[in-house]
Amino acid sequence: MAGTAPRVCLVGVGLIAGSLGLALRARNWAGEIVGLGRHAEPLEQAVALGAIDRFALDPAEALADVDIIVLGVPLGATRSVLEALAPHRPPRAIITDVGSAKGCVVADAQAVLGNACSRFVPGHPIAGTEHSGVQAAFATLFEGRRVILTPEPSTAPDALEAVSALWQTAGAEVVTMSVAHHDQVLAITSHLPHMLAFGLVDSLARNPRHDEILRYAAGGFRDFTRIASSDPVMWRDICLGNRSALLAALAAYRDDLEQLSALIEAADGEGLEGVFRAAKQTRDSYLSWFEDRQAQEVTHDGQS
Amino acid sequence: MAGTAPRVCLVGVGLIAGSLGLALRARNWAGEIVGLGRHAEPLEQAVALGAIDRFALDPAEALADVDIIVLGVPLGATRSVLEALAPHRPPRAIITDVGSAKGCVVADAQAVLGNACSRFVPGHPIAGTEHSGVQAAFATLFEGRRVILTPEPSTAPDALEAVSALWQTAGAEVVTMSVAHHDQVLAITSHLPHMLAFGLVDSLARNPRHDEILRYAAGGFRDFTRIASSDPVMWRDICLGNRSALLAALAAYRDDLEQLSALIEAADGEGLEGVFRAAKQTRDSYLSWFEDRQAQEVTHDGQS
Repeated sequence: MAGTAPRVCLVGVGLIAGSLGLALRARNWAGEIVGLGRHAEPLEQAVALGAIDRFALDPAEALADVDIIVLGVPLGATRSVLEALAPHRPPRAIITDVGSAKGCVVADAQAVLGNACSRFVPGHPIAGTEHSGVQAAFATLFEGRRVILTPEPSTAPDALEAVSALWQTAGAEVVTMSVAHHDQVLAITSHLPHMLAFGLVDSLARNPRHDEILRYAAGGFRDFTRIASSDPVMWRDICLGNRSALLAALAAYRDDLEQLSALIEAADGEGLEGVFRAAKQTRDSYLSWFEDRQAQEVTHDGQS
Repeated sequence: MAGTAPRVCLVGVGLIAGSLGLALRARNWAGEIVGLGRHAEPLEQAVALGAIDRFALDPAEALADVDIIVLGVPLGATRSVLEALAPHRPPRAIITDVGSAKGCVVADAQAVLGNACSRFVPGHPIAGTEHSGVQAAFATLFEGRRVILTPEPSTAPDALEAVSALWQTAGAEVVTMSVAHHDQVLAITSHLPHMLAFGLVDSLARNPRHDEILRYAAGGFRDFTRIASSDPVMWRDICLGNRSALLAALAAYRDDLEQLSALIEAADGEGLEGVFRAAKQTRDSYLSWFEDRQAQEVTHDGQS
C-alpha cells in the first residue's frame, strides 16, 4: 500500500459501514471504496448515496487487490462471512470488524483465519442510532465518537496502525483495550440499558391495555425507550455474543432493583433520596463531560 | 367569579406552576396571578420572568379573594401546605394540585379539608423536564400535553369545570380518570422508568471504575438516563406517594427481566429476537402516535 491510498472493501453496507464510506468520502479519502454483499439492491442504493464507488456480489471480484476489509455484518454472521471471504483474501489484506461484542468475534477469527489472525484487528465504533440500513447512514456519525480496537498480542502493528488511520480519517478518536475489558464495559454502558428498555416495552406490550396506557406516556418515556426501537436481529446477536458479561451485568442490576424496591417497601424516604441524589450527581457530571466532548469536536472541525 | 376573570394563586412557583403562569400570560389570561411561597427570592425571580404578577409570603394576604389555588409543591409537602392554607381559604375557592401521584394527595385533602373536599380537584399535568425551579419554566410546556384530573364523586362540577378551563387555556388537553387508574398507569409509564434509570446510574456510581466506564457510553446511554437527572426530593415523594402501584410495577418488571436473563442464559436466539421484535413494534407505533400528536398540536397553534 506504500505510496497509494488503500483500497477498502466494505462487506455489508448498512448504517455503520455506509456511514464509514460517506465519512471517508467527505474527508477526501483517496482510495477506492468497494461494497460487497449478497443482494444488489442495497448496494445500488449505497452507490447512489455515495457511500461506495462500486460493488460486487462475488467475493473474488470484490477482494481483488484490496488492502483493508471492513466487516459491517451482524455479529452472528461474522463466522460464515469470514469463511466465505478467506479463500479470496489477498494475504497481506487487513481485516477489521465493527461488532458490539469482541470476544465472540475474536473466537470466530481464530477459528477461520488461524495464523492469519495477525492481519485481523477487532474494532467497535461507539456510535449508531436506533435506525439501520444504508439509507440511515450519514457522514458525521463518527465525529467526536470513540472507536475501540482490541488487538491481541499476535496482531501485526502495521494492521493496527492502518485500521486506526482509517477511523481517524472518519473523524473518530481511536482507543485500544483488551477484549475482556471491552466486553465488560459495553455490557454495562450499552447492552444492559438496551435490555432494560426492551424489557420495559415488552412488558408493556404484553399488557392487554397497553394502547390506553401508552397514551399517558410523556417525553421521558420516549427518550428512555428510544433504544428499544433498535434492530432485533442485531440485539439478538449481541446478547448471544456477549452472554457472560451481559448476564453478570443483568444479575447485578436485578440486585440493585431489589434493594430499591426494599427501600420503597420500607417507605425509607432518606434512603431513596440518597440513591436518587447519587444517581443525579453521577449522571449530571457524565452529561457535562459528554457535552464538553461534543463541543470540542465541533470546534475542532469548525462544523456545527 | 361570574363576569370577571378568576384570580389564581400559585403556591410554590417552580417548573410546573411557573410554566402554568407563563402559559396563562402568553394566552392572554385576564385574571391576576399571585405567587405564594416561603422565600422571597424565587418569587421575585418569578415576577421578573413574568410567571406571576405579584407575590406574598403570608397565606392570608395571598389568598384574599382568590378563586383558584394551584398547589405546585412537592408531593410530600401537600398535607402541611394544605394545613397552612385551610384557615385562609375563601369558602368558594377551588383548590387543585399538580402531583404525580393522586391517591396520597386525595388522602391528604380529605384529612385536612373534610367536607370542603368538594372544592378540591386532584390534577396531574403529564409534562415536565429533568430540570426544576422557576428558572427552568417555559410557556409552551403544556402544549400538546395531557392533564389528568381525578375527580371524586363528591367533587363539585363547577370546580372540575374551572380547573379544566385553566389547563385548556394553558394549551393542554384535559382527561379525567379514577385515582386508582391514574396511579397504576403512571406507575408503569413514568414512575417505573424513572426507577430503572436511577437504578442503572446508581449501580454505575457505586462501581469504583465508573469514571472510566462512562467514557465509553454513547448517545443511547445519555437518552436512557436523562430522567435520572430529575429532582431527588420530588422522586422520593413520588415513591412514597405511589408506593403500592410502583411496587407492583417493579415486581412485574423484575420478573420480565428474569425471563430475559433466562433466554440469554439458554442462548435462545429465537426467543430473544421475538422479545426484541415485539418491543420494537410497540415502541415504533407509540412513537408515530406521539409524533403525530405533537405535529397536530403544532399545526393547531400555528407555532413551531
